[in-house]
Formats: sequence, C-alpha cells, structure tokens
Amino acid sequence: MSDRGLTHLDPLGRARMVDVTPKEVTHRRAIARARVYMQTETSSLVARGAISKGDVLAVARVAGIQAAKRAPDLIPLCHPLLVGSVFINFRIEDRFIEVEAQVETVDRTGVEMEALTAASVAALTIYDMCKSSDRSMVIGDVTLWEKTGGRSGLYRRDPLEPLGADALPGDFDGSLVATLDPDLDADLDADLAGDEPEELEA
Amino acid sequence: MSDRGLTHLDPLGRARMVDVTPKEVTHRRAIARARVYMQTETSSLVARGAISKGDVLAVARVAGIQAAKRAPDLIPLCHPLLVGSVFINFRIEDRFIEVEAQVETVDRTGVEMEALTAASVAALTIYDMCKSSDRSMVIGDVTLWEKTGGRSGLYRRDPLEPLGADALPGDFDGSLVATLDPDLDADLDADLAGDEPEELEA
Amino acid sequence: MSDRGLTHLDPLGRARMVDVTPKEVTHRRAIARARVYMQTETSSLVARGAISKGDVLAVARVAGIQAAKRAPDLIPLCHPLLVGSVFINFRIEDRFIEVEAQVETVDRTGVEMEALTAASVAALTIYDMCKSSDRSMVIGDVTLWEKTGGRSGLYRRDPLEPLGADALPGDFDGSLVATLDPDLDADLDADLAGDEPEELEA
Amino acid sequence: MSDRGLTHLDPLGRARMVDVTPKEVTHRRAIARARVYMQTETSSLVARGAISKGDVLAVARVAGIQAAKRAPDLIPLCHPLLVGSVFINFRIEDRFIEVEAQVETVDRTGVEMEALTAASVAALTIYDMCKSSDRSMVIGDVTLWEKTGGRSGLYRRDPLEPLGADALPGDFDGSLVATLDPDLDADLDADLAGDEPEELEA
Amino acid sequence: MSDRGLTHLDPLGRARMVDVTPKEVTHRRAIARARVYMQTETSSLVARGAISKGDVLAVARVAGIQAAKRAPDLIPLCHPLLVGSVFINFRIEDRFIEVEAQVETVDRTGVEMEALTAASVAALTIYDMCKSSDRSMVIGDVTLWEKTGGRSGLYRRDPLEPLGADALPGDFDGSLVATLDPDLDADLDADLAGDEPEELEA
Amino acid sequence: MSDRGLTHLDPLGRARMVDVTPKEVTHRRAIARARVYMQTETSSLVARGAISKGDVLAVARVAGIQAAKRAPDLIPLCHPLLVGSVFINFRIEDRFIEVEAQVETVDRTGVEMEALTAASVAALTIYDMCKSSDRSMVIGDVTLWEKTGGRSGLYRRDPLEPLGADALPGDFDGSLVATLDPDLDADLDADLAGDEPEELEA
Repeated sequence: MSDRGLTHLDPLGRARMVDVTPKEVTHRRAIARARVYMQTETSSLVARGAISKGDVLAVARVAGIQAAKRAPDLIPLCHPLLVGSVFINFRIEDRFIEVEAQVETVDRTGVEMEALTAASVAALTIYDMCKSSDRSMVIGDVTLWEKTGGRSGLYRRDPLEPLGADALPGDFDGSLVATLDPDLDADLDADLAGDEPEELEA
Repeated sequence: MSDRGLTHLDPLGRARMVDVTPKEVTHRRAIARARVYMQTETSSLVARGAISKGDVLAVARVAGIQAAKRAPDLIPLCHPLLVGSVFINFRIEDRFIEVEAQVETVDRTGVEMEALTAASVAALTIYDMCKSSDRSMVIGDVTLWEKTGGRSGLYRRDPLEPLGADALPGDFDGSLVATLDPDLDADLDADLAGDEPEELEA
Repeated sequence: MSDRGLTHLDPLGRARMVDVTPKEVTHRRAIARARVYMQTETSSLVARGAISKGDVLAVARVAGIQAAKRAPDLIPLCHPLLVGSVFINFRIEDRFIEVEAQVETVDRTGVEMEALTAASVAALTIYDMCKSSDRSMVIGDVTLWEKTGGRSGLYRRDPLEPLGADALPGDFDGSLVATLDPDLDADLDADLAGDEPEELEA
Repeated sequence: MSDRGLTHLDPLGRARMVDVTPKEVTHRRAIARARVYMQTETSSLVARGAISKGDVLAVARVAGIQAAKRAPDLIPLCHPLLVGSVFINFRIEDRFIEVEAQVETVDRTGVEMEALTAASVAALTIYDMCKSSDRSMVIGDVTLWEKTGGRSGLYRRDPLEPLGADALPGDFDGSLVATLDPDLDADLDADLAGDEPEELEA
Repeated sequence: MSDRGLTHLDPLGRARMVDVTPKEVTHRRAIARARVYMQTETSSLVARGAISKGDVLAVARVAGIQAAKRAPDLIPLCHPLLVGSVFINFRIEDRFIEVEAQVETVDRTGVEMEALTAASVAALTIYDMCKSSDRSMVIGDVTLWEKTGGRSGLYRRDPLEPLGADALPGDFDGSLVATLDPDLDADLDADLAGDEPEELEA
Repeated sequence: MSDRGLTHLDPLGRARMVDVTPKEVTHRRAIARARVYMQTETSSLVARGAISKGDVLAVARVAGIQAAKRAPDLIPLCHPLLVGSVFINFRIEDRFIEVEAQVETVDRTGVEMEALTAASVAALTIYDMCKSSDRSMVIGDVTLWEKTGGRSGLYRRDPLEPLGADALPGDFDGSLVATLDPDLDADLDADLAGDEPEELEA
C-alpha cells in the first residue's frame, strides 16, 4: 500500500446510476408540462403563423419528440429505455404557450425525465423561434403532472397546488381530470413517506 | 408538369436556419438562469450533500456544460458554433436552487440558446437527482439575463421586471450589477423596435 | 379563458410517435438496397482499391452499420429499438455499386427504417469517398426489398416492378429468391388493403 | 524488431481524413436534391395534409436541417464545419415529392455532403411518414446540383444529363438557372481533369 | 451482368454485427479497470482537490457513466443494449489513480465493452483535468476483471497474471475476492477452448 | 436572503470549461499512441485477416477517426473545435498492436485530447473485434508523443522515458525521430515550470 498516507479509497460512488435490473417490466407513462411566458403580440404572431423563422409549433413538436429519445444522453444518471410513444400538445393563451408532453414505455423504469425533457426542449425551441420578436420571454412551470406504472400506481399533481413561487395555476386543459382514486391515495402516502426503490428510477 | 392541378411549389421554407455567413465574427457572451423550486427539506439535503443518488451540484454542473455544447443538436434552427467557455454556478436557498450559466464564443452568432439550454439541463439534472425525495419540484424562471456582442451591444434584464405569471423576483446574486449604460439604452431601444437581422441569430 | 378570441387548443398532435406499447415482441427483419451510379472508371478504381481517400467499401460498411443504430436519432417519428444484427453487402457493377443492408431485432416494431437508413448512409459514404474522381454520381433505387415479422408476415418486393421513374431493374443478386409463398400472397393483399397498426411502426 | 517475420508497418493510412488546414476560408454553398417516388394517391394525401402520422413536409424539413448539422457524425471522412444556413424546399408532383437542400458556410471545406445528407434524410423521413399508406416507394435521383466556393468556382449540373439508369430528368424548378458563365467553363474543365486537392474536401 | 469481368460479389460482409437475436435474455455484469499513471505531486493535488480545472473525480465519474451508455455509438460492431446500472470507483495511489467501472444489464449480450469504455473515458477525463500540471501521464492497464452472465458463467482475471508488458500487478482493492469456484473453472476451460457464440457478443 | 443560514453561494465553478476566446488561432497538431497487448496467436490472426468478426484494422481506423471528432462530446471540459485532419496508423508486433493517431486543426486550442481519444477508441475497437479469441488482452501505454502549436511550440516525449509502471519502452516506429532541437529544449523547460494558460487548453 501507499507509504504516503494519502491513499484514498473512494466509497461505492458518490453519483451512480442505480440498479434497475431487479425491477419489473411494466407499462409506464408520464405527462409533463411547461410554459413559455411572452408578450401578447408574440403569442398572437404564433397563432397566426406569422413568425418569420418558421412554423413555431411544428418545429417545437419535432424537437420535443426527439428530446424524449435523448433524455439518457442529457441527464447523466438517467437510465436508457425504449420510448414507445410520444405526444406533444400545445395550448396558446394570451400571455403564454403551454406545452404538454406524454411519453409511454414498457420497461423497468419510468419515463418522468423523458416527459420533462421533451417539454423543456419544446419550450426552448418556441423561445428560439420567437426571440427576435420578444426578448421578455420566460420559461416556467416545468413540472410533472401525471405518472403511472411501477409500485406507486397513479400519481397526479393537484392543480390547486401553487407552482414555483406562488405562480397562478392558470387555466388547465379540461381533458386532464383531477379526481384521485381513494384507494390510490393511501398507497401514494405510503410510497412518498419512505425511500421507495421505485422512486429511484431515472 | 402535373395535369392533376396538385403541383405544390413550396416557398423558400417555412422553417429555416437563417444565414449568418455575412455576419461579423466577434466575441459574444450570454448569461441565463433557471430555478428548481423544492421543499425546504430537499434543498437542505442538497446543501448537506445527503442526497443518496449522488453529488447533486457536481453532476448538474457537468450536465450543464455538456448541454451548452449540444444546443445545436437539440434546437433545430440553432446554428452550430464553437463554445469557447462555459461557467455554471449555483445558489441554494430555502425554497429553490438557482442555476446560472455563462457561455462565451468568438463567432458569427450569439450564445443565448447555449446558455439557456445549459441552465435548463442543469435544472433537469437537479430534478432527476432529487425526485425520489421530493415530488413537488417545479423548474421555472428560465430566462436570459445578459447578452453581449453583435450589433445590440449589451443587453441586461431588469431585475425588477416580473418573471412569468407575476412570480416574485426573488433574491438575486449581487455580482450582477443592473445599472445600464445610458448610451446603450438608446441603442437598445432602437434595436428592439425594428426587425434586426442580428436578432435572427439562433 | 382568453378574452382575445385567439386561444388555440391544438388537437392531439399533428406529428406523433405512435404507440407501440401494445404490440407483440417478435423477431423482425428487413432488407433494403441502394445504388450509387457512377462512371465506369470510378467503379473500376473502387474494385481495384485505387481510390486515394481510402478503402471505400470498408469505410462505407462501418458507416452503414453505425447508421442502422442511429435511425431513431435521424428520423423524428422512428421508435428506438435494440438492433440485434446488421449485415452490409456490396456488389460492384460497371455503372454502379449496389449496397444491401439487412437488419434484425426482437422488438415491438420493425426495422424497415433502420435498413433503409443503413443503405442510404453507406451510399452517401461511397459518394464521399469517390467524389474527387467523379462528379456525375447519383444515388438511387433506395428501397425496401424484404420485410418479415409482425402481423403481415413476409413481404418481398417484386423484382420485375419498375423502380422510380422507369429505371431498369438491373441485375439482382441471385441469393434473393423472389418466389412468393401463395398462402402469404393472400395475407399480403389483406394486410395492404386496410390500415394495419403494424404498418404504423416506425 | 519482431523475430516472427510478421511485423506489419501500416502505411500512412488506407482511409484518412485529408488535411484541410492549408486551405482558404471562403464562402461555400451547395444545393442537392432527392426524390421520393410514390403512388399518385400518396402524394395527394401529403398535399392535402391527410397523412395520419403527421405533417409530412414540416417533419421532413426539420429532419433535413438537423441532418445537415450531423453529416460529419455520419460520414466517417467528412470534416466537421460550422453550417451557416440551411434551406429545405419541397415540390409535390403526381408521382414523386422532390426535396431540395441548400447549405452554406464560411470555412475551409465545402458543404456538398451536408447538402446531400440533408436531402437524403428528408427523403427518408417522408418515406417514414407515408409508409403505412404506400409500400411501393423508392428514393432516387439523389445528387448534387450546384456547388460554389473554393478553387473550382461554380459548378452546376446539366439538367439534360440523365440521372442514374436513364431516368427522365423530370421537371425542374425554374428558380435554378442553368446558364454557365463561359469563363468558369474553362476553369471547370481544368479542375475536373486533374486531381485537385480542393476536390478532396469532405 | 457485367461484360468487364470486374463484377465483385462481396461475401457476407467482412465486418458485421453478429446476430444476438437467438440468445437468451439474462442478467449480465462486467467490471473493468484502468489506471492513469502520474507524478506523485499530481495525485496529491487530486486527493487534496487542488486541481484548478475542477473536481477531477466528480467530473470523471460522470464522464464514465455517460460513456457506458455510448459504447454502441463509439464501437462500430458493439450491439445496443439498455444499461441497467453503472458504478464508477476510484483509488488514488502515489503513482496512479485507478478507475473501476461496473456495468449491469438484463439483455441478450454482455456489457464488457460498456465497462471498458466507461473506464477508458473516465481515465481520459482524469488526464484532461490534470494535463496542465503533468505532461508525463500515461493511461494503462485497461482490462476486464470480471464478467458474469451468458453461457460462460463467471469469469475473473487472475490478479497474479501480468498486465501488458510485465507491469507490476499493483495493489488491488480488497473488495474483489479472487477465489474461483472450482465448478466454474471447468466450464471456463471448455468455453475458452472453442468458438462459443457467446463470446461473439459485442 | 435566507433566514436559515444555509445560503450557499457557489464560487465561480468547481469544474469549468476555461475561456479560450482570448487565445490565438494557429495551426496545432498532436500525436498519441496506444497499445493492445495480446497473445501471439491473436496478433497473427489479425495480420492474416483471419478474425471472423471482420477486418480489424479497417474498422478500428474508422472508429478512431470518428472518435477524434467526438472528443468534446465525451470529455466534459474539452472545448469543441473543427478537426482539420486525422491519420490513424497501426503496427502489428508479436505481443501487441500499436495505434498511432495524428490530429491537426487551425484553432484556439490544441488537439491533444482528440488524438488520445482517437487512439483509445481505436484500441477499444481492436479489443472488441478480437475478444472472442483472446480474453487476456490489455490496453496500455496510452500517451501523448508529440504536440505542436500554441505558446509551447514543439513537445516530444522522450522514448527512453518509462511508460506506466516501468513498462519496457518497446520498439518504436522509425518514422518518429526523437532528437530534440536544443533551442526548443530551453523553451520547453521554461514552459513546463510555470502555469501556462496555454496548458489549460482542453
């Protein structure tokens, strides 16, 4: 051994990609959203297809789908998996454009990061397409709204819960029903209390 | 030609990567920020280095630097350029962790998207590292704070300007001085009024 | 909601990566071909190993194999899958070099795009290796010749069917037998008539 | 040295990325085209926006622009360069859809492969979007139509020159004027006769 | 056929990604190591966290984890697979830093190349972080130490076996027990003698 | 500010991509080598072209060239640059195959990591091609042999200097002359003594 006294035996890794090989292969889905806040004139230009750089939503949609496939390449401890489906939706309001990304797979680990990455990159693309018209834009409210599969079953975010620093919840898409199944409520509480291996999934 | 009446001559591209070849090669810099809002217990765990998945800030920093180099691969109309430097800084507060990404280059086009992408991916990585402990997290306030180079000279965001949907400005890093040069003010107004080719940069 | 009348609720995605999670995991294979038309002197140089840029077929083969693995990264709505095998073959004739790419997998979706992308990139690489000697080159006849797996069973292209704008079928490799199984004929007709989910695979 | 008699001193590389460091940095441009031959019903569906998988041309356009940036990653001996602009155009006819890709840069080497790769990948994407409706498709006529910059000056393909195996030239876009500058004619002949280092550019 | 006599029918590929589709899906693991030999002062700087470029081991760890996911993109005939876990460990000695990479998966093929690539890239990153302080560095002793799964069962390298050109075995981590199971010994000999398809895995 | 006392203002980044924008654009070159130690039978198989997986050196060469272009994607703090040329050479000896990678560019920063990455990946590819025949292989002696450009001028490794843990220098390629220019000796010593910004290049 070393006679210098400086031998450093690094413990089993500070950062590590946790082992999902013992987990069950099941169907998993996640829905994430993001908003690009902008001036009223800008969202109007997007809605009218009058942004000179191109078709904003079409380009952002493709960028979001591609980003869902690249999440493991961007997020270091994210496990690679085979994305089975990706849907990207937009909603244009006066003061913002909202992106919703839904990702599904049949695998050992969830697609939460794939959905969040898809929503984030779609938002960044909208920003890139519009920035010559609007320098005030802010991307925000990037969060997970729904997640199924694995041990926890169904998880849905409460739309009445404030986002970020007391931001207004805004006006959400009616297609997302927010009633929680009472049986799942109990499971959710139990899951969130401890350190579930299922939550360790990348 | 077609006898069907369906010949469709597509105009010079709805989406296009605009030509930067006539632009001048100059030094350019951009600073962008993002916040990951979380529970107080979570930011405390990060500050203490007690997140089991690993060293949160170290991993997020590397992910952010790598993302700055990949922006043209993620954002379809973003021009490739040679990133000359990348700095990623963090600030841990009770309710959020703030990421600041600074990117520099000597090239024909600005590094605004590189800085925003770096900040976004660093934020997504913090989220990924902490999500087993905190399912309430929201990424927000992703925006450009400063930009230099090209025709517009210096641009700085006014810290008193609300972000997103009336979010509180929060507590910003004192190293960013917000006084604007009166001469630049005039240039900025002139630039933002019209449709400057310089703003078309990806 | 918006008081501006410009709220735009985007339908369930114009472009989407369709859901393959309900599909069955089976063995799937596809064979695609492409041709690089060139001057007689050029194909002669390739056959003699006299192209100064390097060993044309060796480099093109590696490029084709790598491209089969990258198809989901290039084709936006292409599903990621795990390629199980890739074979790249060449045939040098007077006026062209023909590439044949065979790809196999055990997965929920077919490898048609993987095979076509492999053949296309191998052809582009042959072009790149030879272009200093021959500026007349054209890549053509890029098409699927065989596909197995999934609901449709076996599909084979009829070699007597013209390719493109009445191009001559050329002289095909005897190892590809073109007789169709009469039972499969019936299935094929049934499959191609309707809108089979199996055909939606990327 | 070896006493086995099997020492193999490999010469200066069979395949190599030739040195462009001595070359001049100039403006360079290339235009390439590709065609996707299909059934009349299919091109009609594309023109009407009735392909269920999505907006065919919008997705293909983004894929083509991204592919222009990735050419050095796909084509082994292709030099990396900074793409300055990319335009992708489409022309829908009864029996085919034609893609035209124009790429520009200011660099030491030309963008011929970038334009060809963009056209090829856009064509592959059109194929992917339409394949559930049409299994007869063939990608062909992938070739360089114009190239400027470097020593050779301007190069334009003669539209009367047959493509591939006697394919009909088709009906070309009137925006491409085919008159050649007589002075350039002389240069072109001189260039094409010998082995110009300029032509070795990737 | 050709009248030139130069028709070249390429046999079933000189280089090919061999078919793993018939293989069994099982749990597989591999452990690889690498060393970065350096001056005593340099390893001391690393241990003290005094390398100005940054936190050497933290950055190298992330680079190694990312590289494990990219092995199929770097090694042409390497099969894509879904990495299930990655651990990177370091050991700092006077004259070298040792990297150990462990990779696991549940798939048809082994993760030997994933582990070796992870160890190599982590070593290259350590080199990159330290090179301004030490130009004498050498990366060596990159090899596979353990492999499980597939037909061969367990394989472990004999620590008394010399590495490379008679390098000293060094001082290995006590957590790796080197006793071999006598039953496995017999299997190993049988496996290594012939040409097992299991060994053809990428 | 925070009332918790846990506010953590992270200093200007533990890991950072140092700024090269003030540096001069000059011609730069680097030569790196690596060895794959193997059994005599294995190197004999490679020399005879009898490795069933394919043409070992051809595949390894392409992998090395591609890796030179990807160094900034693998090594986190490595600056992106435009590689101008890549040469990969091999030397087969009884007990090892040696790879030599030479990379050139005209840019603000050196290509040391590009050359080392190319040599390492070429070595990993040789390993991958041969591993079914030889499980004893070790990659070693990965180091920089020559570097030019920037402030330091020429740097050459002394071939008599031991590599790694007292490995024998081996038998080096006669095309690399090892005599150092006496004037450069003095410059080298001066450079290596202090902390030259030039050495901070990625």
